[in-house]
Amino acid sequence: MTVEQFATRHIGPGPDDERRMLEVVGHDSIDELMDAAIPEVIRWHGTLDLPDPATEAETIAELRALAGRNTVAVSMIGLGYHGTHTPAVIRRNVLEDPAWYTAYTPYQPEISQGRLEALLNFQTMVTDLTGLATANASMLDEGTAAAEAMTLARRASKTKSPVYVVDADALPQTIAVITSRAVPLGIDVRVVDVERDELPAEFFGLHLQYPGASGAVRDHARLVEAAHTVGALVTVAADLLALTLLRAPGEIGADIAAGTTQRFGVPMGFGGPHAGYLAVRSGLERMLPGRLVGVSRDADGNPAYRLALQTREQHIRRERATSNICTAQVLLAVMAGMYAVYHGPDGLRDIASRTHEMAARLATGLRAGGVNVADVAFFDTVTAIVPGRAAAVVAAAAKRGVNLRLVDADRVGMSCDETTTDAHLREVWAAFGVPAFVGDTDAALPADLARTTDFLTHPVFRSHHSETAMLRYLRRLSDFDYALDRGMIPLGSCTMKLNATTEMEPVSWAEFAHIHPFAPDDQTVGYREMIGQLESWLAEVTGYDAVSVQPNAGSQGELAGLLAIRSYHASRGDTHRDVCLIPSSAHGTNAASAVMAGMRVVVVACDDDGNVDLVDLDAKIDKHRDALAAIMVTYPSTHGVYETGIASLCAKVHDAGGQVYVDGANLNALVGFAKPGRFGADVSHLNLHKTFCIPHGGGGPGVGPVAVRAHLAPFLPGDPSGAHADATPAISAAKYGSAGILPIPWAYLRMMGAEGLTRATGVAVLAANYVAARLRGHFPVLYAGNKGLVAHECILDLRPLTKATGVTVDDVAKRLIDYGFHAPTMSFPVAGTLMVEPTESEDLAELDRFCDAMIAIRAEIDKVGSGEWPAGDNPLANAPHTAAMVSGDEWPHAYPRSAGAYPAGVDRAGKYWPPVRRIDGAYGDRNLVCSCPSPEAFED
Amino acid sequence: MTVEQFATRHIGPGPDDERRMLEVVGHDSIDELMDAAIPEVIRWHGTLDLPDPATEAETIAELRALAGRNTVAVSMIGLGYHGTHTPAVIRRNVLEDPAWYTAYTPYQPEISQGRLEALLNFQTMVTDLTGLATANASMLDEGTAAAEAMTLARRASKTKSPVYVVDADALPQTIAVITSRAVPLGIDVRVVDVERDELPAEFFGLHLQYPGASGAVRDHARLVEAAHTVGALVTVAADLLALTLLRAPGEIGADIAAGTTQRFGVPMGFGGPHAGYLAVRSGLERMLPGRLVGVSRDADGNPAYRLALQTREQHIRRERATSNICTAQVLLAVMAGMYAVYHGPDGLRDIASRTHEMAARLATGLRAGGVNVADVAFFDTVTAIVPGRAAAVVAAAAKRGVNLRLVDADRVGMSCDETTTDAHLREVWAAFGVPAFVGDTDAALPADLARTTDFLTHPVFRSHHSETAMLRYLRRLSDFDYALDRGMIPLGSCTMKLNATTEMEPVSWAEFAHIHPFAPDDQTVGYREMIGQLESWLAEVTGYDAVSVQPNAGSQGELAGLLAIRSYHASRGDTHRDVCLIPSSAHGTNAASAVMAGMRVVVVACDDDGNVDLVDLDAKIDKHRDALAAIMVTYPSTHGVYETGIASLCAKVHDAGGQVYVDGANLNALVGFAKPGRFGADVSHLNLHKTFCIPHGGGGPGVGPVAVRAHLAPFLPGDPSGAHADATPAISAAKYGSAGILPIPWAYLRMMGAEGLTRATGVAVLAANYVAARLRGHFPVLYAGNKGLVAHECILDLRPLTKATGVTVDDVAKRLIDYGFHAPTMSFPVAGTLMVEPTESEDLAELDRFCDAMIAIRAEIDKVGSGEWPAGDNPLANAPHTAAMVSGDEWPHAYPRSAGAYPAGVDRAGKYWPPVRRIDGAYGDRNLVCSCPSPEAFED
Repeated sequence: MTVEQFATRHIGPGPDDERRMLEVVGHDSIDELMDAAIPEVIRWHGTLDLPDPATEAETIAELRALAGRNTVAVSMIGLGYHGTHTPAVIRRNVLEDPAWYTAYTPYQPEISQGRLEALLNFQTMVTDLTGLATANASMLDEGTAAAEAMTLARRASKTKSPVYVVDADALPQTIAVITSRAVPLGIDVRVVDVERDELPAEFFGLHLQYPGASGAVRDHARLVEAAHTVGALVTVAADLLALTLLRAPGEIGADIAAGTTQRFGVPMGFGGPHAGYLAVRSGLERMLPGRLVGVSRDADGNPAYRLALQTREQHIRRERATSNICTAQVLLAVMAGMYAVYHGPDGLRDIASRTHEMAARLATGLRAGGVNVADVAFFDTVTAIVPGRAAAVVAAAAKRGVNLRLVDADRVGMSCDETTTDAHLREVWAAFGVPAFVGDTDAALPADLARTTDFLTHPVFRSHHSETAMLRYLRRLSDFDYALDRGMIPLGSCTMKLNATTEMEPVSWAEFAHIHPFAPDDQTVGYREMIGQLESWLAEVTGYDAVSVQPNAGSQGELAGLLAIRSYHASRGDTHRDVCLIPSSAHGTNAASAVMAGMRVVVVACDDDGNVDLVDLDAKIDKHRDALAAIMVTYPSTHGVYETGIASLCAKVHDAGGQVYVDGANLNALVGFAKPGRFGADVSHLNLHKTFCIPHGGGGPGVGPVAVRAHLAPFLPGDPSGAHADATPAISAAKYGSAGILPIPWAYLRMMGAEGLTRATGVAVLAANYVAARLRGHFPVLYAGNKGLVAHECILDLRPLTKATGVTVDDVAKRLIDYGFHAPTMSFPVAGTLMVEPTESEDLAELDRFCDAMIAIRAEIDKVGSGEWPAGDNPLANAPHTAAMVSGDEWPHAYPRSAGAYPAGVDRAGKYWPPVRRIDGAYGDRNLVCSCPSPEAFED
Repeated sequence: MTVEQFATRHIGPGPDDERRMLEVVGHDSIDELMDAAIPEVIRWHGTLDLPDPATEAETIAELRALAGRNTVAVSMIGLGYHGTHTPAVIRRNVLEDPAWYTAYTPYQPEISQGRLEALLNFQTMVTDLTGLATANASMLDEGTAAAEAMTLARRASKTKSPVYVVDADALPQTIAVITSRAVPLGIDVRVVDVERDELPAEFFGLHLQYPGASGAVRDHARLVEAAHTVGALVTVAADLLALTLLRAPGEIGADIAAGTTQRFGVPMGFGGPHAGYLAVRSGLERMLPGRLVGVSRDADGNPAYRLALQTREQHIRRERATSNICTAQVLLAVMAGMYAVYHGPDGLRDIASRTHEMAARLATGLRAGGVNVADVAFFDTVTAIVPGRAAAVVAAAAKRGVNLRLVDADRVGMSCDETTTDAHLREVWAAFGVPAFVGDTDAALPADLARTTDFLTHPVFRSHHSETAMLRYLRRLSDFDYALDRGMIPLGSCTMKLNATTEMEPVSWAEFAHIHPFAPDDQTVGYREMIGQLESWLAEVTGYDAVSVQPNAGSQGELAGLLAIRSYHASRGDTHRDVCLIPSSAHGTNAASAVMAGMRVVVVACDDDGNVDLVDLDAKIDKHRDALAAIMVTYPSTHGVYETGIASLCAKVHDAGGQVYVDGANLNALVGFAKPGRFGADVSHLNLHKTFCIPHGGGGPGVGPVAVRAHLAPFLPGDPSGAHADATPAISAAKYGSAGILPIPWAYLRMMGAEGLTRATGVAVLAANYVAARLRGHFPVLYAGNKGLVAHECILDLRPLTKATGVTVDDVAKRLIDYGFHAPTMSFPVAGTLMVEPTESEDLAELDRFCDAMIAIRAEIDKVGSGEWPAGDNPLANAPHTAAMVSGDEWPHAYPRSAGAYPAGVDRAGKYWPPVRRIDGAYGDRNLVCSCPSPEAFED
């Protein structure tokens, strides 16, 4: 490969590194290593049929050409997707800043204080605006947030009714997602015109839209009361910008609020990613799905943030789960929260007022021109009634560069936003054939629903309104955090590899960023071509026949895949097939997804080597043969091993009439060497934020496409917009999910090509085996497959050391911070272990730095074991060490400061210092605080 | 103003802040304050005639439209400007990263180690490739580097000859700049065909181009020898990319090498900015102009970088100066150096080989098609001889999207570069009417000139070749530094204010970045329209009649202004007018520029209040009446005061036939309130990197337009390209200088509008007076004008405290680092003082944080004074404190660690730690090392 080829930039080890690593691992070449590691029964020996790799410059040129085939129109379609100005300081210093986008989920809170504070701002913004007690750290989109609200209501409601009432004026895609989710759970969704029609006698929940999809702003107080009377919970899907001017849902007794924060500075992106939100009244906080940031304290008693209630009822609990959500939209939630920080309450109110003023002027002008406008209160959206002319008006507007919403043959919807200008209004009036309006505007906000309560009163929303102040706040927070731009994040099963700049840059382009998900097809030609290519490349890589990129997280991909299996069985009359076999080593999400797909989970045991116990499998198949719907396995296994029994496993399940679901979480160990779609699986979901380089963003966005063999293709996710009468369930609120970030995997595949992708897999496996080989003498490596080789990750067993010395996995993870690392995955899949996945992007210098640190830590553990260091007061127990701690005037510890702060090999000048000491999670859970604490809390 | 208006983002203090600040200063409103501060005699009461302010979104849309009127063609024009691929990781994490671009010149080396290391990489790259001993940290462009080489040769040569011989195959714009510089200095430039014609019998220097503008690669060894025989020095203007394959200038005895590093990943930008380079053989290093980074050691004896030889012979020395260069192109030098780090020696050789291969194939194909190609060795540039057809060929190529060089009626030049593709060659062949060539290529690199020596052997050029490694290296270095993204940089006279993201973003756009400075006019319509608007807005703001943006630094603007005065006098037959009056308080550059313009400097005294002594002025005018050319004054004065005598001063000089030059360094105190062009000045240069928001970039790029009244307009800088037969001297190598960054001031002016600009000035003056008011009781404030008010900056006098306690300005500056600040300007314009310029962008919280820190430092000084802390061992003497120091196992100091590390008010968790302790500059100057030290030097 030459200097021009991207693969040489993506893959860390160069030829010299590779030689040295092979020597340690004891193989002659990567090919030979892979031959040894991968069971021949699954090995694929072809060359991926992908375009020849393009250089970075060529890739950008091709993406520019694709982008050029999209049309950036003025969007007035609305329906939860609005034009917005991303403040440039936020775009550049969050969305385009590797310190933010290459960060991982904040499971190690001591090195994640920046994004945790940013998420706390987001939660505070949501609770303030909705008037509810507690908000989580974001949902995948408004549709899935609304669906989660439904299941939350079901859990919380005391009624036994299976009926869920949905406002007919709810967003159509929300209705589609709610319905998709309801069916397998046996929930009976009733779409009701809540203004005109009677509510059913019994129901467990009510979903209201505020303002409605039509734009109507209605007083829902009476409906809330009626719902409460029958023991139902009420969700109000509310527009946060409107809530700066309108009475908050919490003020009329709503139990739940759900929605999106997209219009808070996050580009539409043809559907995503954006941060949905979910907030609940007091009393429901422990039932809230998803991630929740809370305030706790560190070892010095200082306030510190961490994910709260990780052990709470609704956390992923395998077969008893009620939600499979295990990620959020952190990067986008950070942006939306920062938008509120930058504008502050007055700024947001200004934006809302201006938006309303535009809509009001639009309506007044239409009326003045003789157009009939629905006679209701509204915020930003106006519905015009033009019998028989709606399509013609929409077409005329499109010609003028403005997209309107075709509600039906007689009605046209128009939404204003902060980007709306007088010129846009003139185009709309012209499309209706009415003259440009000049004159006084009729206000249309109902006075009795006007907001009277304060919001965003915390100083953080009043302190960073100049660009200079904002820039520094963003820098300060990102400096708290450890992301891939500082060093290795060797998280097993998470594949924290390079997110290349060339992959990221197109995400900011207007032609990708500013496209409404329901824009007319002729405006999205480039997008759809790009997505089509991506889907076909992913199909080639995985060996499947069809791919849908709609699922906007791995969990949603799982659900989509299981629903496809469910629909497939149903299409053959096998409605009784509802058992899903899941190995005991599986990720909790698998079981949760199965439950959500209406399946019964049956656990299959693993043998001592961590492989699926084929004997137990036989037994379980026998027992559930007639009801067998599917098996879900991860390959390579969650233990990081290429199980040789996989082909036989697939055959057994198929013979019993079941389908095989292979979780694609570990695809980074297969690409170019094996194809799940060819070794026996029927369906997989992929994690584009793992193998295909979408950055983790601090805990989202994720993209989890579902890939299937041909017989399942008819059951891939349907279009939720209602534009194409799809019978299949919708998984997310937009047809292509988080389309806005799909240029990332597209670019990765385009630049790597067959050879680059295959080499990446080989180097990833080499790196894991190199780490295993170097560390095996210091920590037992759990599980190995063929010839003692691991796949792309290895599990280091701390349990014997813990037993002997009391030093825990936690201590080692925190101590790694002192050495300048993010910890590996802790206690998954085996409690008391660390799972290390180095990926192909780390070069030998960094791999060695990590191995050296682990070996040095082993020596430290021995000092504790030998009693040289007291058990309760040693560098491991006290890790991580902050600068404030090691430079304190007093030093009461049993070891020198240097041993705490500067263990062997640490870069003194460039050392990363965590901002807080070890955090006490339990304290925070006992004293739950999930919005911004007062500044006084931080005083010394 | 509303949330939409950019001025509210640019200006730090909001309405509440402003009220509190006015209270402290004791004025009712900004208007009233400005009425009090600014002498009525200069006060202008109009409203600036500028377009109404645009929002950020509107501004981006307008710039997009302007950019759309440029045409990005394939550039094969060459002449020192080449297509190049900026590695995306460098673009995003240097050019687009505020941590790099908002940094100041590294005068405070302890908080500048990152960019100093990056510059040392640049210097090492230049010395390695040129084969010379020492390179400086960059020059403004190749033309000015060549001109500096000429004057350096003159100083170093022992001959008295005024003759400077320039290779006729030198770049035309280099010849233009050299000639412009030579005339006022009495140097006789002779352009000679050095291959054919005899050299003069006597000359002090010889300038050779390698490869030549024609592309020819010639063996210059004989010429070097001949020059040395007559005591002349030889400059080789060399292409660094070619030097990866060709024998280095140093290997044939060249004394000096000069050139550009543009093609090392820096976009052409219609002429700039790029980093020029200058390197010299051993023995000349102390004569090198510009900035030089060297290795020294810190208080712990660890290696540390800083600017070297700041006291050396050629440093700005007022009237005895030999160069007025006082800036560099740091941001661009960092990019070019990082390009070498990322590609490494093998990568650069690959790029050069591929580039040569393209050129060779181009030539072979032309010859095969019957086109006559100059029969010489070449690297990347081919000259075709097509008698009478050259213009037609160039036009045909342009139609095909490729720009070639029209050498003359018979010859066409074509340069290849790393972006050249086969498709480009096919277009060129087609333009010549020859078939696309397939077949073996004739090599054209002369074997006897092949490079045989290694380069870039330092590990830094071999360690960061994956994107992950590169990203982390950039992050590590930028983390060492303190820039505006961390906090205030209150540098008097440097106006470190917001560089807004919206101003910066267009710099990256292809339509601005990828335009050759000599592209045909029809491809640069948008650029020239944008520049024309910018020049007219700057004229409106300053009250002048004409502006040229050509000077690519303030120093060059000064020279341009003085040359205009010189030409004006000459045009009137006043060739004897050569005296330039300069107040003793002036910046050293003023005098240096006057010397370079061929003027004699006569110093005018200042009175005790720091104002120009009008009595001494009278005396000096009397004495030099007939010879008086000009006076150069800064307004407000370098003391930060609105001198009331300015109008009278102007009148006196005019009466004596002189011209008035007002240095625009302090224009931030005038915009909207006074116009130099209206209160008596004839010419000013502006600093767009001060008042008009071009970022300082760590010490460049700068832009220093020259603005003149109508009678001087004919003498503005001429076009150096030779395309338009300009008689006036060229100041930089491209007509519009650093055109690529002019979108920044354009956007600033467009978004601020008259009201915003005026308010910015008022707030800047308010902020300076607020700081003065708060600190006056703790440090005497030197100089004040009307009613005790300062202008936009204030001078804090440390001298009495130094005398009483021994605590120096240096101690205070370094101690401010511990408090989380960059020091104010030290000992300028008055030794022993600090000059503070807060600018309008700092909000009250940050101003107060600074004032609180200064007051706390005053209390610390008192502790030293009282003997509570020993004179030699206290937090001031030991500042700055590194984390390693305050967390050391031993603490031998007379004060607690906390007093050193965490003085009052410091943000513990987010504290900025300098990577090194106080640096011993003198040690490094005695032991001069100006390239990368070995890694072993950094071992503990």
